[in-house]
Amino acid sequence: MNPQSFSLEKLAHLVQGECVGQRDLKLSGLASLEHAGAQHLAFVNADKYLEQAGTSKAGALIVTEALKAQIQGQQNFIVAANPYLAFAILTHVFERKHAQTGIESTAQIDPSAIISDSAYIGHYAVIGKHCVVGDESVIQSHCRIDDDVEVGKQCFIDSHVTLTGQAKIGNRVRIHANTVIGGEGFGFAPYQGKWHRIAQLGSVRIGNDVRIGSNCSIDRGALDDTLLDDGVIIDNLVQIAHNVKIGANTAMAAKCGIAGSTEIGKNCIFAGGVGVVGHINIADNVTITGMSMVTKSISEAGSYSSGTPMLESLQWKRAAVRFKQLADVPLTQLMQRLDYMKSQIESLESTKLRNNYDD
Amino acid sequence: MNPQSFSLEKLAHLVQGECVGQRDLKLSGLASLEHAGAQHLAFVNADKYLEQAGTSKAGALIVTEALKAQIQGQQNFIVAANPYLAFAILTHVFERKHAQTGIESTAQIDPSAIISDSAYIGHYAVIGKHCVVGDESVIQSHCRIDDDVEVGKQCFIDSHVTLTGQAKIGNRVRIHANTVIGGEGFGFAPYQGKWHRIAQLGSVRIGNDVRIGSNCSIDRGALDDTLLDDGVIIDNLVQIAHNVKIGANTAMAAKCGIAGSTEIGKNCIFAGGVGVVGHINIADNVTITGMSMVTKSISEAGSYSSGTPMLESLQWKRAAVRFKQLADVPLTQLMQRLDYMKSQIESLESTKLRNNYDD
Amino acid sequence: MNPQSFSLEKLAHLVQGECVGQRDLKLSGLASLEHAGAQHLAFVNADKYLEQAGTSKAGALIVTEALKAQIQGQQNFIVAANPYLAFAILTHVFERKHAQTGIESTAQIDPSAIISDSAYIGHYAVIGKHCVVGDESVIQSHCRIDDDVEVGKQCFIDSHVTLTGQAKIGNRVRIHANTVIGGEGFGFAPYQGKWHRIAQLGSVRIGNDVRIGSNCSIDRGALDDTLLDDGVIIDNLVQIAHNVKIGANTAMAAKCGIAGSTEIGKNCIFAGGVGVVGHINIADNVTITGMSMVTKSISEAGSYSSGTPMLESLQWKRAAVRFKQLADVPLTQLMQRLDYMKSQIESLESTKLRNNYDD
Repeated sequence: MNPQSFSLEKLAHLVQGECVGQRDLKLSGLASLEHAGAQHLAFVNADKYLEQAGTSKAGALIVTEALKAQIQGQQNFIVAANPYLAFAILTHVFERKHAQTGIESTAQIDPSAIISDSAYIGHYAVIGKHCVVGDESVIQSHCRIDDDVEVGKQCFIDSHVTLTGQAKIGNRVRIHANTVIGGEGFGFAPYQGKWHRIAQLGSVRIGNDVRIGSNCSIDRGALDDTLLDDGVIIDNLVQIAHNVKIGANTAMAAKCGIAGSTEIGKNCIFAGGVGVVGHINIADNVTITGMSMVTKSISEAGSYSSGTPMLESLQWKRAAVRFKQLADVPLTQLMQRLDYMKSQIESLESTKLRNNYDD
Repeated sequence: MNPQSFSLEKLAHLVQGECVGQRDLKLSGLASLEHAGAQHLAFVNADKYLEQAGTSKAGALIVTEALKAQIQGQQNFIVAANPYLAFAILTHVFERKHAQTGIESTAQIDPSAIISDSAYIGHYAVIGKHCVVGDESVIQSHCRIDDDVEVGKQCFIDSHVTLTGQAKIGNRVRIHANTVIGGEGFGFAPYQGKWHRIAQLGSVRIGNDVRIGSNCSIDRGALDDTLLDDGVIIDNLVQIAHNVKIGANTAMAAKCGIAGSTEIGKNCIFAGGVGVVGHINIADNVTITGMSMVTKSISEAGSYSSGTPMLESLQWKRAAVRFKQLADVPLTQLMQRLDYMKSQIESLESTKLRNNYDD
Repeated sequence: MNPQSFSLEKLAHLVQGECVGQRDLKLSGLASLEHAGAQHLAFVNADKYLEQAGTSKAGALIVTEALKAQIQGQQNFIVAANPYLAFAILTHVFERKHAQTGIESTAQIDPSAIISDSAYIGHYAVIGKHCVVGDESVIQSHCRIDDDVEVGKQCFIDSHVTLTGQAKIGNRVRIHANTVIGGEGFGFAPYQGKWHRIAQLGSVRIGNDVRIGSNCSIDRGALDDTLLDDGVIIDNLVQIAHNVKIGANTAMAAKCGIAGSTEIGKNCIFAGGVGVVGHINIADNVTITGMSMVTKSISEAGSYSSGTPMLESLQWKRAAVRFKQLADVPLTQLMQRLDYMKSQIESLESTKLRNNYDD
């Protein structure tokens, strides 16, 4: 597919690594240790892969100096301080790039929209009034960019994305297919047994270098804006409600959901399926393990969890029944009673001993 | 963006409130207390916002009579019995409305479809045989309305929505972007180790004043129809399986999932991420807290929960190990044993006392 | 809608069942026992439906021999060994089929793509370079089929589906609306406080007879491919991360999420909302109950669960507080202490008895 190949020396140079072995070896792709062939470069990141590295058919390996010393039977290496980072950098070399620029003839673009000459607009994209698409940005087919939305430079917006609610998107932002940014927040005033819709008048602002997966929903704010700061990365099927704020470089795995007006700090990591209630604050550098339910603010950096571990269903049923019973079992009091009874028994025993001595 | 402005008197009139202060003050938008400027109207809904209200730069405030009496340093008010409801009403005044009618030239509409003259059909919408779109409904770009689907009056269907399975949609229904209504239910008959697809022959019926968020999936029924009654409101990324029935004015936050054939009553509130098994019944006026797992019918109104609270991960690990142990710890029997041992010890102590008296 | 009708005899023949009663009875559809009319065929699958079967207005019933013997007041039957399977087969008789072939004039198809003459390509579909669409496959409106994607024979791909990442789709695969296959996996190398994107170079391979619901996200692999084996069935809003492998005939209900590189065996059943961490293995024939969190490999077939049962919220709060306390309550040690104290008390009591005897 990608006929381009590079010399080992060239690839080593790209990652500022040391080239060891056949400098002019031509490599045409990256592969896993397991599936690599002679034309592939693979990487070794930890001692546990050493055995696999030794038997891999890869043409060359990215390794640390320390790992290299332990690998038998391989001759071609790129030695780098951080092989995983070197691998990450080289994926961009072998990635197929979108090279086209210009506007497909079928795209519908309002005359008031400003589209950079170096941008690409795919087939059947629909772009509304006063929109902006910056230099070298790629808008794939069928995207809907509603009135007053702005997209920065070097963005990639995949097919069927809906950008609405006057969203403002920074530079180098990647939004994957079928995601909706700027949809109406879920705001209703209850009155006399019915829900009265609150039209959402805020927007969404997304910083630079943000990544959003496929099938995500990121709603516009009620009055103020929903905010994703620079470097935030979000996986697929994530819900970000109105007026949420997410700090720089926070990462969120698939299926997380953040309820309205919650503020999340910088450099946080949320594993998959985490749910967070509305109107709370989460500090910087907080890790939340998978499927946890966060129901109150977190003011200290650290790792937090909820849920119960997986069990065989029959064992789980017994534990689950006992969980119910916990409601009526005063656990801490129980420990106190045990301690008290222990002292009573000891007292009785000393009496018995005394009695025996008395005998 | 929205150059229109209104006098304080006019806005007070619209919410049947009392105008206090400068009656001809021009206001051009709503804003939060924090970000409001002189041209903005903000609302105060509870005592806890009084301090912020006093220092807000808002041109005027929506308040109750009681709150007004406690606010210093502000002179312009709309006094209303329910400020939040008044705010909800006024969001519609400042909301940008979709004004266009007619059918974009690129829309593909089957000749047998009936589209109201006052409806709007966006670019690249595809509308099939025998479809109906009612008066003043807005169908945004790229919608797919499959054969025999009917959409009522004054509906708003955002971009990339798929309406299929002969769905029937009421009046004043709002469906946000990239949602799928009427997709095939997940029905398979297992036989000899394989799954045999059951073609779904039922449909979906959605009442009036229903609101469905973005990226939702609401499946058609197997034989009978999936039903959402009037006034149901649903947030983003929600799954409604085949043959589910949801009663009037029930609200469901993001990421809920309701399995097949379950019936949910009226006026229920499901917080985010709630999961409900199939083939059960949930009464009217039931509240389910976030991320709860509902595995059996609920016959009484009230609030229900499941899950465990968030803990620091190290503490959580210890609690989680003990949760496993619960399977083999007979908690209620344990309490009985403690009580029994207590009585034994008391008996021993009274004996000891007697013995001592006897001495 | 579907004017076609079939004789009872014909329908019995189609499911290799026995026709009992009026052989030339014309039936025009399937219906539930509750809503069936004289023109409908209904099925009875278990004793608990016998009463409803007796009073149903259905024209005829699919039953087992044993069930038939217990039903009063009905005269027309199809007797089959497995009525549910017979029903599943007959849904295909009454299902509305997509009959059109050919390419809609508005579809954008790259000249290098190979589209079978017997395939159908809907309005505004966009098909890229070197794509293949096999015989009798239906690609609905607005689909995006990116470069190098291949779709087998007799597939059904509903509207707004995005197929990218050079995905390869087998035969008789059904993919429902707004699903994304082959989106970029969530891979980033952390370095100096930032996330460095790892371009995903693997693909997605989907076997034959696979079914994927609406609004799903199935990512392409990082280096190797994400794999769904033959006969896998997946419901709506499911997340399959990069490099996941799913064995043949495994079923996954709505809202499941499988993290990267996890391998799942054959014939597994995952109920709704199950989450599975990355880099683990799950054996064949494993059932996971709803909303369970799977955090480690499962090597034995069987049923597994996690979570806590639903309680009234007040009771739940008490149990939840106790769950926290469990972290500091040594349950198993507590049982040992109780046993030890029991023996101490028994010893004291025997002493007392002896003392009493001694008296």
